[in-house]
Parts: sequence; C-alpha cells; structure tokens
Amino acid sequence: MTIGVIGLGLIGGSMAIDLRRRGFADRVLGVEGDPVAAEAAARMGLADEIVGFDRCVAESDIVVVAVPVGTAVRMVPEILDAFRDSGAADKVVMDVCSTKEKICLAAKYHPCRKQFVSSHPMAGTEYSGPWAAMPNLFDGRACIIADASESSPAAVKKVEDLYGVLNMRMLYMDSSSHDVHTAYVSHISHITSVALALTVLDKEKDEKHIFDLASGGFSSTVRLAKSNPDMWVPILTQNRENILHVVDTYIQKMNLFREAIDSFDEETVRSLIEEANKIKKIIR
Amino acid sequence: MTIGVIGLGLIGGSMAIDLRRRGFADRVLGVEGDPVAAEAAARMGLADEIVGFDRCVAESDIVVVAVPVGTAVRMVPEILDAFRDSGAADKVVMDVCSTKEKICLAAKYHPCRKQFVSSHPMAGTEYSGPWAAMPNLFDGRACIIADASESSPAAVKKVEDLYGVLNMRMLYMDSSSHDVHTAYVSHISHITSVALALTVLDKEKDEKHIFDLASGGFSSTVRLAKSNPDMWVPILTQNRENILHVVDTYIQKMNLFREAIDSFDEETVRSLIEEANKIKKIIR
Repeated sequence: MTIGVIGLGLIGGSMAIDLRRRGFADRVLGVEGDPVAAEAAARMGLADEIVGFDRCVAESDIVVVAVPVGTAVRMVPEILDAFRDSGAADKVVMDVCSTKEKICLAAKYHPCRKQFVSSHPMAGTEYSGPWAAMPNLFDGRACIIADASESSPAAVKKVEDLYGVLNMRMLYMDSSSHDVHTAYVSHISHITSVALALTVLDKEKDEKHIFDLASGGFSSTVRLAKSNPDMWVPILTQNRENILHVVDTYIQKMNLFREAIDSFDEETVRSLIEEANKIKKIIR
Repeated sequence: MTIGVIGLGLIGGSMAIDLRRRGFADRVLGVEGDPVAAEAAARMGLADEIVGFDRCVAESDIVVVAVPVGTAVRMVPEILDAFRDSGAADKVVMDVCSTKEKICLAAKYHPCRKQFVSSHPMAGTEYSGPWAAMPNLFDGRACIIADASESSPAAVKKVEDLYGVLNMRMLYMDSSSHDVHTAYVSHISHITSVALALTVLDKEKDEKHIFDLASGGFSSTVRLAKSNPDMWVPILTQNRENILHVVDTYIQKMNLFREAIDSFDEETVRSLIEEANKIKKIIR
C-alpha cells in the first residue's frame, strides 16, 4: 500500500517511520511545505520520496493530513475534490488533528465525505518538526475516531488497520464531544503551562535562578509551554468556546485556593489538596 | 558516624538509604511518629533501629529533621535545647524543609544556632511516606543551604560532606531569597497542578473519559496534584506572602491569555506562546 503523509512533523513523521518499518506501507510519499523541513525529512529518510501535493494525492491509497488544524480544515475538502474528480472511490483521506468539530463540519456535505476519516491519535511530545519524529510514539496510546458513522465502513476499517499497526487503543465519539473532552483533559494543560512559563519568566528576571532551582516538579508542570505555536494557535481558535469555559472554571478554582491561602484557612487548603489528590486514582 | 533521621518519609527515608549504603553513616537511627509508617520503615530496613526522639538526638552525630515544615519549626529549637543541655557542642542538626525563612527565624537567637544548618535538597516525587523512599533520589539535583553564615563553618562542612555523598550541587542563599525564588520556581507549580486537577475533576464527571483521554502532557502537568497535603499545607502557610504574589501574577497572565483567545486575537495568542517558549532555553 502507498501511504501519503502531508506534513512530515512530529506526528506525520513518526507515523511514516512506523508504518513503513512495520510493513503496513510499501511506499511512503511525503509532502512538506517548509523547504528546510523537507530537506531534513528527506535526509532522515522519513519518506521514500518527497513529492508535491497533487502527486501525493494521486498516488496514495491513504492520505494522512498531518498539518496544523487551520490548514487541515481547508485541505481535506480539496483532497476529497481530487478523489471525486479522478473517480478514486477506494482512496481514503484521514486527518490527525487535535480538534474535530470544525474539520468534520468542513467535510460534512462533501459528496465524497464517506472517504474521509477524522482521527486524533493522542500522542506527542513538546517538540515539533521532522527532527522530533520518532519510532514507537503511538504504542499503547488512545486514538479517537470522530463521527465514524459519516465515513464508509470500508474507510474506517482501513484507518483502524493503520492505527492497529501503530498499537493504538481505539475510541469512538462524535466530533463535538471530542472537542469538549479534549478541552478538559488536554488543551487546558497547555494553557496552564504557558501561563506558568510566562509567570516565572516575568517574575524571575535572573534566568540562572530558574536554571539552578527548577526541580523535576517544575520542569514537568511547565513542559507543555515549549509547544509549537503553529500547532497551538489554531487549536485554541478552533476549540475556543469549550476552552474558554474550562479556563473560567480553572480561574475560579485558582481563586478559591488563593483565598484559602490568603486567609490562613488551612482546613480549606487541605481539603482542596485532598480533593485534587483524587486524580491519583484515575491517572497513575 | 551515627545519623539520626526524624521522619522516615520520601526525603528522610531516601537519605537514610543512600547515606548508609554509600558508607557515610555507620548507623542510622530513625524516628517515625506514625506507627504504621514506623512499622513499614522498620520492615524495609530504612534505619538500623527505630528509636524515640530523645535517644535519637542523644546518640546521633548529625540529626536530620525531615518532617513537615510546620512541625520542624518547633522541633529544631528543641533539638538545640537538648544539645545545650547535654553540652554536645560537636553535634549538628539540619532540616530539609522546602521553606526556610520561618525555620531560620525560629532558631536565630538560640545560643546553639551555630550547630544548626538549614538546607533544602530540591529532589522528590509526588509520592510520600516510607513507601516512597528510594535510592539515588538526590544525585545531580540542587541543594540550597540557607543563611550559611549563621552556622559554624564546621557544621556547614559536615552538612556539605553529607550532601556530597548524595551527589548534590550546592547553592547558597539567604533564607528570605530562598523563599522568594522557590515560590516562583517550585511552589507555584503545585498550586497550578492542584487547580488543574480540581477543574478536570469538576468538569469531567465521567472518570472514564479522563482515564481514556489523558495524554502524557496532561499527566505531566497534573502530576504534582498528587502531592501530600501534610507536607504542602504548612509550605503554603509559611511562604504565604511570596506565594500570593506569584499567584496574582499567574492569574494576570492567565487572564491575558484568556482575553486573547476570547477576542480571536491570534497574533497575541501566538506572541504569548512564543514568549512562553523561551523556557526551552532554560529548562531542557
């Protein structure tokens, strides 16, 4: 099978590596708009060939759209247009973006909608670009297929097979629920990390102190603040309403905690920490 | 040398393990107030003997106070009293607490102040109790000695030797600066993690979704919310003013970020993430 990967960054590049070395793809065609990244991806051998968009869509059995979600929303319907124009009824296009509602909406009324599968493999690191691609990134992690009933069973099956090779745990939900839940469990973490980094960089003028004093705890809490704005600006825009709702709850909880500390109310401070401790039972 | 460790939890227990197996301590005497923890520490062999407070202070060359800071503030002067009453001028007591100003103040005018060394080994995990103690916890991490000039050079030397065996990088600052810097670089992370856990537990009523969808990013950001309130309530109380100051800046940054998302101001969202990205250069 020929797999086309549009966007050879952390996600696209890592998929390319494992799909080929695990035998799912006989050939990987890569598309990369950034010339420096394209050159690097070629040198690293992430794809068998770096090609243009049209050739990738024409020659691939499955096209993986692994670009920031703002671009992907425009690109998926274009690929479906190409499928329609060339009569390629067996081909599948899938996206791997972190928000699902707007991209599913953009394809919803396309005559070839059934050839599109919208997915979100929940794996990654705070790094980006072909340099960040790595083997085994997806093993054991969760992968969501959104609005599966709007894709053809054959298309869903192909995408499930692909993620099966990547050893992902499959979950199914509608695109709107996906965006609500990921706002709570994923997107908010990025926002709290960014605010933490901004606070520390603002208050601690001497970088040497941050370097010297940063404990493992701080490093882990601030890690996501290293994430790429090219990826995160569109996520925050596309999932704006859910995110604002979660941020407001977050600020409320923070004010509650602040009040308790301010008024020496150790009993409330303790009960808030004990309540937060419950996360232990859910996340190891 | 006989080392007395009061409090055989994560920090005290881990010190006991490495100080003995690396040959710094010939004998470790442990004191543990919680009977279940004491029994566990004895079974795990964290100390050669579990003894009472008085015997530990009487027989140890160095007494390590590794209890929550609220208790330590009362305990250090009591130990100095015992040194004075028994004429034990060569003995040293050290604490390992995360806030330094109030504990240094509590000992400041004690006639035996020079026998006290106030330190903060910046290592740990989100777990607590003797069950959390582990070898190699301190290797390569930073350790602060606060107000070193108020201790005798001989006492400081002993404590430096002890931390040398634990392979810690030594830093020196006054107790008040310590509390300012750790509020920025350490304590605030605990508060943001607790608020994050409270938010997610509040918004996401179905724990299964949290379990299914939690990515590595969320787990890392929320990790510190698992921390023990017995340790953290006194830290937040003792470092209250610095912490409130940092929390206020944090809420300000969060509101700035929220505003930008709310008003579709992608340029500001991007510039805030780019600014936060600078943490990359400081923390790997």
